[in-house]
Amino acid sequence: MRIILASSSPRRAEILKKIGIDFDVIPSRINEEFDEGDFGEVVENLAKRKAKEVFERTFDERIVIGADTIVVLNGEIFGKPNGFEDARNFLKALSGKSHEVYTGVAFVWNSGEYSFHEKTVVKFRELPDELVEKYVRSGSPMDKAGGYGIQDLGAVFVEKIEGDFYNVMGLPIGKVWEFLFKKGWWR
Amino acid sequence: MRIILASSSPRRAEILKKIGIDFDVIPSRINEEFDEGDFGEVVENLAKRKAKEVFERTFDERIVIGADTIVVLNGEIFGKPNGFEDARNFLKALSGKSHEVYTGVAFVWNSGEYSFHEKTVVKFRELPDELVEKYVRSGSPMDKAGGYGIQDLGAVFVEKIEGDFYNVMGLPIGKVWEFLFKKGWWR
Repeated sequence: MRIILASSSPRRAEILKKIGIDFDVIPSRINEEFDEGDFGEVVENLAKRKAKEVFERTFDERIVIGADTIVVLNGEIFGKPNGFEDARNFLKALSGKSHEVYTGVAFVWNSGEYSFHEKTVVKFRELPDELVEKYVRSGSPMDKAGGYGIQDLGAVFVEKIEGDFYNVMGLPIGKVWEFLFKKGWWR
Repeated sequence: MRIILASSSPRRAEILKKIGIDFDVIPSRINEEFDEGDFGEVVENLAKRKAKEVFERTFDERIVIGADTIVVLNGEIFGKPNGFEDARNFLKALSGKSHEVYTGVAFVWNSGEYSFHEKTVVKFRELPDELVEKYVRSGSPMDKAGGYGIQDLGAVFVEKIEGDFYNVMGLPIGKVWEFLFKKGWWR
């Protein structure tokens, strides 16, 4: 069974490698607009659209994995920041507070589909301006939901999490593995 | 200020690199025996002994960082496994349950010292035998407290955590950064 990751995120590919499977990366070309619905539905729907789009332009026996991640603070969705000023504002808003990270994951294969979402609560420490500036100038926020990566210098923003760490990085690998294992697609 | 990491753990060095500082690695040569005391004290004391031992055989203005990590299940300490059979037993004991990971961190510099410890609760999913066997045979458990690494295939063992992820990997980087920042040793 050919496994395809429908994501251009280097973090997702790095995480998927941990379970020791071979896979190809074919990023989806969909317009990443959020549908209506609760946050879990929003990310699951987008993950499904990504997986389906890639499934439809590939061939043979295959399973396509799509994923989408958002950060939610006080009921407001933080996607990827538009520029440095936006990134700075995101981080200042998140400073000292708890937010939620939702990742939706969808699997589409020749005879079926399956999706789920996972939520992790992340508590940030108070971020000194010096740290925010250094981080924003590094450029790291620009391709990341909420404007931070928990796997780079952004690691020090986080006081504690409740839930799955890899969900915050963009792919809840435990549940992804569990699904592949149950289907007999991991060994 | 020269920063020295008194640990041979490649995970700790990898984590410390995230905050963008230059440091040298000089592993301590102490005998890693646990003192009496509660779990926080046990790891802090060992971290202090590691940092002091390296401090005493180095020179110039320097700060030495020592760390020690243990896994505790039902009040019992799990250090590094002695062989494959031990590793298998560790993982089977941890399967489906919550355990605690304690890391103690100590800083020793020319005019002072400081230490703290951090606790993270880790909940494992039920581990199928097939997964345990594959993991044990990979050799990964052998140099790790509790017999697993949350950053390799061991990532899928974990259903959720409560606390600091990097603490489970062996170095609670947020608090390490916070200390260095407050002392003016990070910029």
